[in-house]
Amino acid sequence: MGRMTIDQYRKADKLPLTVVLDNVRSQHNIGAVFRTADAMRIERVVLCGICCCPPNQELHKTALGAEESVEWIYYKDTTEAVKALQAEGYTVYAVEQAHDSMTLEEAAEQCTMHNAQFTIHNAQFTIPPKTAIVLGHEVFGVQQEVVDLCDGCIEIPQYGTKHSMNVSVTAGIVMYRLSGAMRAAEGGKS
Amino acid sequence: MGRMTIDQYRKADKLPLTVVLDNVRSQHNIGAVFRTADAMRIERVVLCGICCCPPNQELHKTALGAEESVEWIYYKDTTEAVKALQAEGYTVYAVEQAHDSMTLEEAAEQCTMHNAQFTIHNAQFTIPPKTAIVLGHEVFGVQQEVVDLCDGCIEIPQYGTKHSMNVSVTAGIVMYRLSGAMRAAEGGKS
Repeated sequence: MGRMTIDQYRKADKLPLTVVLDNVRSQHNIGAVFRTADAMRIERVVLCGICCCPPNQELHKTALGAEESVEWIYYKDTTEAVKALQAEGYTVYAVEQAHDSMTLEEAAEQCTMHNAQFTIHNAQFTIPPKTAIVLGHEVFGVQQEVVDLCDGCIEIPQYGTKHSMNVSVTAGIVMYRLSGAMRAAEGGKS
Repeated sequence: MGRMTIDQYRKADKLPLTVVLDNVRSQHNIGAVFRTADAMRIERVVLCGICCCPPNQELHKTALGAEESVEWIYYKDTTEAVKALQAEGYTVYAVEQAHDSMTLEEAAEQCTMHNAQFTIHNAQFTIPPKTAIVLGHEVFGVQQEVVDLCDGCIEIPQYGTKHSMNVSVTAGIVMYRLSGAMRAAEGGKS
């Protein structure tokens, strides 16, 4: 598959997956999230609170131009961002370890299960559910009031000494897995 | 599941998955790889060429101590590292886009398919195949002579304008997926 130009990218169909960054401190992490969002062709990055916004030189160093292709929007208050997404029909998950969190694999299965099937002019279409994931600050994670607003929590099972990974790595793993589930449901549509 | 101490971690069973870093430039990226390696409890990180080694202050900033829990070794020459792993029975994959690369999902299936089944004292054990993945320099990728030595290439399908993601994000996605396949084959053993 060839590379797309930024114009082609903007016009192309995106997966209905939105990444919300709740007060992520590091410009490098935000840049890396943009780069993964471009690669997975998801629809939008929502920057909240202390997150830096494009244009920004440090962000550009890791985004390498993906901040031009991927749509983004800024909210001062993350709770407003979550409410707006829910009003648009999104299921919003905080990526956090919580008592009732589901694993990423369970979340991917849900994504596939909740696909809507449509038949238009005898052609079958599968529409994945509108999904948003919220990732939090490098040290403090997703704010509790944001977690409380969300429709659930997704957790990546961890087996080590730390119980936390870098936020751009975590975002990348969740984006890969959920976008893969959405694409599989769409029958491999890219 | 509670957090382990570094001592408990060192004594615990690891998945037979090794990550080889072929001349990765950024200390932050190397640190983030250590942190994911700790979380997935894989056995080893192999640092090659210009990669910095612990103890290193910049590396520590992103590894946050995972460089203490995860075993590592240094090779000046990446080809020597790959040859040594192959001599130990590892299948070594470069994470690179190539004509004959398999997708990460195909690689995960292979991991599961090649599990060895053992029965000892009427208890069944499943041993995942020894697997190593090689990730390359931020700009130049894995060296061609290293790719040529490897047993195959693994590629993460990408749909955007860039066709490359941050190396620590890429490493994280591949570690998550392959270690997940190994754990599923082991029947959820953590």
